[in-house]
Amino acid sequence: MAPFLVDWRKLWRGDALGVVQPTTTAEVAALLRWAHETATPVTPQGGNTGLSGGSVPGPGDAGLVLSLARMNRIRAVDPVNNTITVDAGCLLAKVQGEAEAAGRFFPLSLAAEGSCTIGGNLATNAGGTGVLRYGNARDLCLGLEVVTARGEIWDGLRGLRKDNTGYDLRDLFIGSEGTLGVITGAVLKLHPAPAARVAAFAAVATPHQALGLLQLAQNRLGPALTGFELISSLCLQLVLRHVPGARPALEAEAPWCVLIEVTDLLDEARALDALEDVLGRALEDGLVSDAAIAASIAQTKAFWALRENVSEAQGAEGKTVKHDVSVPISSIGGFLDGALAALARLHPDVRPVVFGHLGDGNIHFNVSPAAGDAGESLLARQGPINRIVHDLVAAHGGSISAEHGLGVLRRDEAEHYKTPIEMGLMRAIKRALDPIGIMNPGKLLRLEPPARP
Amino acid sequence: MAPFLVDWRKLWRGDALGVVQPTTTAEVAALLRWAHETATPVTPQGGNTGLSGGSVPGPGDAGLVLSLARMNRIRAVDPVNNTITVDAGCLLAKVQGEAEAAGRFFPLSLAAEGSCTIGGNLATNAGGTGVLRYGNARDLCLGLEVVTARGEIWDGLRGLRKDNTGYDLRDLFIGSEGTLGVITGAVLKLHPAPAARVAAFAAVATPHQALGLLQLAQNRLGPALTGFELISSLCLQLVLRHVPGARPALEAEAPWCVLIEVTDLLDEARALDALEDVLGRALEDGLVSDAAIAASIAQTKAFWALRENVSEAQGAEGKTVKHDVSVPISSIGGFLDGALAALARLHPDVRPVVFGHLGDGNIHFNVSPAAGDAGESLLARQGPINRIVHDLVAAHGGSISAEHGLGVLRRDEAEHYKTPIEMGLMRAIKRALDPIGIMNPGKLLRLEPPARP
Ligand SMILES: Cc1cc2nc3c(=O)[nH]c(=O)nc-3n(C[C@H](O)[C@H](O)[C@H](O)COP(=O)(O)OP(=O)(O)OC[C@H]3O[C@@H](n4cnc5c(N)ncnc54)[C@H](O)[C@@H]3O)c2cc1C
Ligand SMILES: Cc1cc2nc3c(=O)[nH]c(=O)nc-3n(C[C@H](O)[C@H](O)[C@H](O)COP(=O)(O)OP(=O)(O)OC[C@H]3O[C@@H](n4cnc5c(N)ncnc54)[C@H](O)[C@@H]3O)c2cc1C
Repeated sequence: MAPFLVDWRKLWRGDALGVVQPTTTAEVAALLRWAHETATPVTPQGGNTGLSGGSVPGPGDAGLVLSLARMNRIRAVDPVNNTITVDAGCLLAKVQGEAEAAGRFFPLSLAAEGSCTIGGNLATNAGGTGVLRYGNARDLCLGLEVVTARGEIWDGLRGLRKDNTGYDLRDLFIGSEGTLGVITGAVLKLHPAPAARVAAFAAVATPHQALGLLQLAQNRLGPALTGFELISSLCLQLVLRHVPGARPALEAEAPWCVLIEVTDLLDEARALDALEDVLGRALEDGLVSDAAIAASIAQTKAFWALRENVSEAQGAEGKTVKHDVSVPISSIGGFLDGALAALARLHPDVRPVVFGHLGDGNIHFNVSPAAGDAGESLLARQGPINRIVHDLVAAHGGSISAEHGLGVLRRDEAEHYKTPIEMGLMRAIKRALDPIGIMNPGKLLRLEPPARP
Repeated sequence: MAPFLVDWRKLWRGDALGVVQPTTTAEVAALLRWAHETATPVTPQGGNTGLSGGSVPGPGDAGLVLSLARMNRIRAVDPVNNTITVDAGCLLAKVQGEAEAAGRFFPLSLAAEGSCTIGGNLATNAGGTGVLRYGNARDLCLGLEVVTARGEIWDGLRGLRKDNTGYDLRDLFIGSEGTLGVITGAVLKLHPAPAARVAAFAAVATPHQALGLLQLAQNRLGPALTGFELISSLCLQLVLRHVPGARPALEAEAPWCVLIEVTDLLDEARALDALEDVLGRALEDGLVSDAAIAASIAQTKAFWALRENVSEAQGAEGKTVKHDVSVPISSIGGFLDGALAALARLHPDVRPVVFGHLGDGNIHFNVSPAAGDAGESLLARQGPINRIVHDLVAAHGGSISAEHGLGVLRRDEAEHYKTPIEMGLMRAIKRALDPIGIMNPGKLLRLEPPARP
């Protein structure tokens, strides 16, 4: 059972009576009926790549891990309706491949796509690099099949763009991190396959200028703008240091860079023209000091790899304190100024490693120890550092978990910032759908509110 | 109180103790606390333009109509975050206007926009003509402020593209038709204002060919395709007969027409080129027998008016039986063939008036009496005709209410088609959030399931 009881980052280890791997929805339902009768906790698990500790049971847990790994059939592809219907245990990469084979495009994309499952993507409402244009996992799902905490099968596998016949159960299960039921199947939206994607790197002096570039790009490109990522100079330095074969995109080092991507359905030349037009204007306006457009598909991939390898490269520099936050896009400059200044004042030894999906207002505000330090003293300060960053996020009306969910990692932190009224609504829903609390206990919320002084 | 007690179509009349028109969220909360303590029913009402009887109390109701009409402030516009924050009682047209004044575009658009409110749009998850590109009201909302059935204020007014911190309360209140709480404010998404919108009319022989044209258009235009409406020849005849000044878009009459719209952010010529390219290919492939592109903004408006006046024109031909259904887009041809054949066989005297948002799979499958007949006998057959159409919708995995919600009109019909498991989940949520059942009682669902034999 060992691999099912520890999470991807090896931060959380738990116990279980056993691991079950059903192959059909009916088997999942039978299991849940039994678990409901016997009050046995159930932890749903997909690819076990989640980053918040939601996919493994807690220590001393006397329940089951319910792995969806064997439920991995593609049920149907409908290129005219632009939908694909899949078992929840299908790997994300498999769904992308099936879409491509049907001449279509499934835009959910993240570094774990070879290991994570659609069920896990939906249970955490995963984001990734395609959100700016195509939305989160939530926006890519039309219908669900769910086994409830009582072991009933809810067949909500609809492939409809419009359906106003009652409460939105689909969106309630999406993002509920396995605490309300088990997702066993889904109808996902497909898009026409684009002919060309072209990326560029642009150097900017500050996040405020990156924001100016974002506005220019949105106003001139609209939905053709499919990527807009912010990367600090330290991020790039770490990638160039630790990732074999990585080469800088721009000649001179800049305090901040933006990775910008333009997509065209039919025509590469048109994508290039549009990108050149925007970058040309940005250079003229002084928003950007330097820029390089990828000259080939291989170079576009290499540009993206610079961005996608930041996490891995950071891992080579000691322990990491991570923040996966979002703020209104108009507040990004103010939030970053404030957070960087507070960190420099209160924890001058540590190094902020800042990057993220600027177009979505989503910043991975990570922190590394000083060069050469393994980071034990940084980890000891995790609580106070979280507080600095998250207080600023809250002051800007932001979210302390933009992409990765609450799991156990951010569960109490979320309760700290949410109002008792919001927590009360969430608990009322939890009690209504999982009355005895067997679904992924201890994740996302505690069953009872903590005592307040 | 009279205007508050009868709906737009004058089909439902109810009673109330009084009409309250609060001006602040705190006043709404005080009212709801009182209603909760005294078990007084509350019917939220926006513009009272809903088409399913959800906005007026039932006969003999001894409760309050809570009109949001006086809560109509624009709270904030943030063009950088592309959001606008408004009171729920703001008219949709006012929000569109404020967006435009800020150089932005709020894409929700429907014929009632001068009278309906954002709160009503969200409570019914309204659709309209912009859904193909921009989504339903649900997709245009980032955050809500809601007064719960207990009179608590839930402040979920977030302007974030990404937030994974617990259950999706926002989407639960959206589409709940006032049965879970009162929406008092919303953060809405804005888009860049497009420079050009160009429309064309195309003649097709069958809905199957219209579908072929849709696929061609989606594959070549992607997000530039912003409208795709199907209109039967009878619809156009009625508009030309009853709407003063209406002129045909095409010279020869065709069994079916498609209204297709292309939008370009920057450039009218580019929109025209794209539209010509698609229609040229469709003519070559034999999908389309004739086509006309609007030569001016005025003509684009006139083309849209032909489509938008169908309902009104139909009203001049006697009583109407309406169906607002959706099916997977790939099933539209099969559904229409089946429904038209069944109607011709079982009710040969009546005339189907078929039009709708083909790009969303949403068909208004309406029925008029024979020419010259006032339609009393048609109305008497409403139940059996509903059953024919809705059984076919259900057989194709469709929805019996695509846009207009359930209200009282489709409440029991929805229960007829949904599984007891789905109804059980909906009732569990209703009980959890509105334990004594004061919010818009009798709408969307009955509190208890009907006795089954
Ligand atoms: C290298 C790497 C990169 C990543 N990049 C991103 C990124 O860019 N954006 C992003 O959003 N996330 C990212 N993630 C985290 C992301 O949440 C996961 O990769 C993925 O969405 C989880 O899928 P999974 O199948 O592994 O789920 P698991 O880890 O198995 O489970 C995650 C949660 O979902 C629940 N769950 C799983 N399956 C089901 C089901 N069928 N029914 C009900 N509940 C279920 C679990 O109980 C748990 O609470 C990354 C992770 C890694 C390791
Ligand atoms: C001419 C015409 C054309 C239309 N075209 C379309 C169309 O193309 N697409 C479409 O989807 N619909 C259309 N509709 C119907 C559509 O549902 C409404 O026009 C609109 O969305 C309702 O807004 P309202 O403010 O009038 O709500 P109301 O009619 O007042 O209320 C509708 C429902 O929402 C609830 N409600 C209202 N405000 C609140 C609130 N603040 N909080 C909680 N609950 C609330 C009510 O209780 C009721 O159940 C049309 C209607 C007309 C008359």
